[in-house]
Amino acid sequence: MELLFLGTGSGVPAKHRNLSSIVLKLLDERNSMWMFDCGESTQQQILNTTVKPRKIEKIFLTHMHGDHIFGLPGLLSSRAFQGGDTPLTIYGPKGIKQYVMMSLKLSQSHLRYGIHYVEIDEDGMIFEDDQFLVTAKRLQHGIPSYGYRIVEKDRKGELMADKLQQLGVPFGPLYGKLKKGETIRLEDGQEIDGRDFIGPMQKGRIVTILGDTKFSEKSIELAEDSDILVHESTFMHKDKDLAYRYNHSTNVEAATVAKKAGAEKLLLTHISARYLYADSKQMEKSARQLFENTFIMNDFTEVSIPLKNEER
Amino acid sequence: MELLFLGTGSGVPAKHRNLSSIVLKLLDERNSMWMFDCGESTQQQILNTTVKPRKIEKIFLTHMHGDHIFGLPGLLSSRAFQGGDTPLTIYGPKGIKQYVMMSLKLSQSHLRYGIHYVEIDEDGMIFEDDQFLVTAKRLQHGIPSYGYRIVEKDRKGELMADKLQQLGVPFGPLYGKLKKGETIRLEDGQEIDGRDFIGPMQKGRIVTILGDTKFSEKSIELAEDSDILVHESTFMHKDKDLAYRYNHSTNVEAATVAKKAGAEKLLLTHISARYLYADSKQMEKSARQLFENTFIMNDFTEVSIPLKNEER
Ligand SMILES: [Zn+2]
Ligand SMILES: [Zn+2]
Repeated sequence: MELLFLGTGSGVPAKHRNLSSIVLKLLDERNSMWMFDCGESTQQQILNTTVKPRKIEKIFLTHMHGDHIFGLPGLLSSRAFQGGDTPLTIYGPKGIKQYVMMSLKLSQSHLRYGIHYVEIDEDGMIFEDDQFLVTAKRLQHGIPSYGYRIVEKDRKGELMADKLQQLGVPFGPLYGKLKKGETIRLEDGQEIDGRDFIGPMQKGRIVTILGDTKFSEKSIELAEDSDILVHESTFMHKDKDLAYRYNHSTNVEAATVAKKAGAEKLLLTHISARYLYADSKQMEKSARQLFENTFIMNDFTEVSIPLKNEER
Repeated sequence: MELLFLGTGSGVPAKHRNLSSIVLKLLDERNSMWMFDCGESTQQQILNTTVKPRKIEKIFLTHMHGDHIFGLPGLLSSRAFQGGDTPLTIYGPKGIKQYVMMSLKLSQSHLRYGIHYVEIDEDGMIFEDDQFLVTAKRLQHGIPSYGYRIVEKDRKGELMADKLQQLGVPFGPLYGKLKKGETIRLEDGQEIDGRDFIGPMQKGRIVTILGDTKFSEKSIELAEDSDILVHESTFMHKDKDLAYRYNHSTNVEAATVAKKAGAEKLLLTHISARYLYADSKQMEKSARQLFENTFIMNDFTEVSIPLKNEER
């Protein structure tokens, strides 16, 4: 599980920061990728990565501002052109379906796969299967702007089949009983308690990706105990009045959310083009005074999200 | 007057060729630029040039395929963000107005300038002022796809005011008479014939930019006597069956059009991503066997279009 930042800019593209898009790589988990926002030129950014459009299974749009959605029709068309034929689900605020359908229709783009649309109109769960659960919450950005909390479900411990074989447990239905935690007796008289041969539970990871927002208690609620929190940081804190006026956040506000939410790591993105490289290092440094584990993202930064018992 | 190629690819973007867009720079002529097509990431390409979005006065779309229009909403938004406040005219096939208006509305983009839409539904003149005349003609691409012929009007010779001053002609209404070709008599008795002091007529230039098309007689008609013909060359001639099937042209077909139209120079663009650099050199070479003055365009190639009496 990795987060790949395709675009980390804000509003208008800059040479060093393209418009918003993030890919959550779930190759080990489900052999697919989920995309969050799709600013113009996202498909061009992808050309410099190993991302394959046909592997994209879900696209979540946080809000309808152009710098977050104008890359969508092109990406969807190219996904078809490059052989994508599996269905895709698009989640986003009301209007996203009309935008995509109209763009595809007027441009005569005929896709060879179906698109399922989920338009969000209230806070709550938007997706669940046996691996993941995703909830959305509306933030504060003037227009509807959502944050997404992606919760990987805890995995039960695995049965230690290797060890059982060494003890002489024959292949077959006994393994099923042991897995349920029952005790069995072998022909040679050995008693084996299944509970002794089940590995530790694997705790799932939590990734919270917020759309554009000013500082908000909703952000803190949504991000609670996240392993990774992705928060916009359009402005430096000296420009906090601008941030407030334009419904955006500063680096320090983002750090405050991470701290209050008890998050593990904070990734800052959506950086205004007015700030140069030195400013962005300063942005990172001053956020760290409040929340140590803060990192400024750049285009093509990839962050791995290890399981709790993996090396960090 | 220069033509700047922002994107020279076809269908899907490649690392070395972005999607279609060309800028006709008219800085000396009218302190503005005209754009032809606006594929996704055109505004990002512009960041590597001296083009200022606020200088763009007119945008002509050849047809509604996504690789020619998906960059338009983003470019229009950034034009506003970067201080553009002068009105803009968009020319294109039926549907372009709905596409732009809906994209801007759903993305809550509020521009500070007006957009005038001219939807073309038949061949003919679409713009004329005292400098330029633009006609459109439908080509053969399955869906409506237009070519644009931009004709610069001939300029009358200028009055040689410097020489007249040296002869002692006083500032004032006499210059008006001389300009009309009348003869005047000065106080010192000199007779001056205006016709002797009017410079040569300046012949206007003709630039023809075609949208996607298969080989077509309409292309030849539209491009007649052009100084510059921009023609698509999606395929190499060995793939001419593919070209025909997909309503596109080969390099040799483009050269045939240039030759039959009596054009001065042929610029090939809209090159399929399947061809690598060596192929594209070959594409140029084999077109030159038919039409010597042929050039393959690359992203950021700039071609100047000199006046007839300037050095070429
Ligand atoms: Zn934004
Ligand atoms: Zn095309």
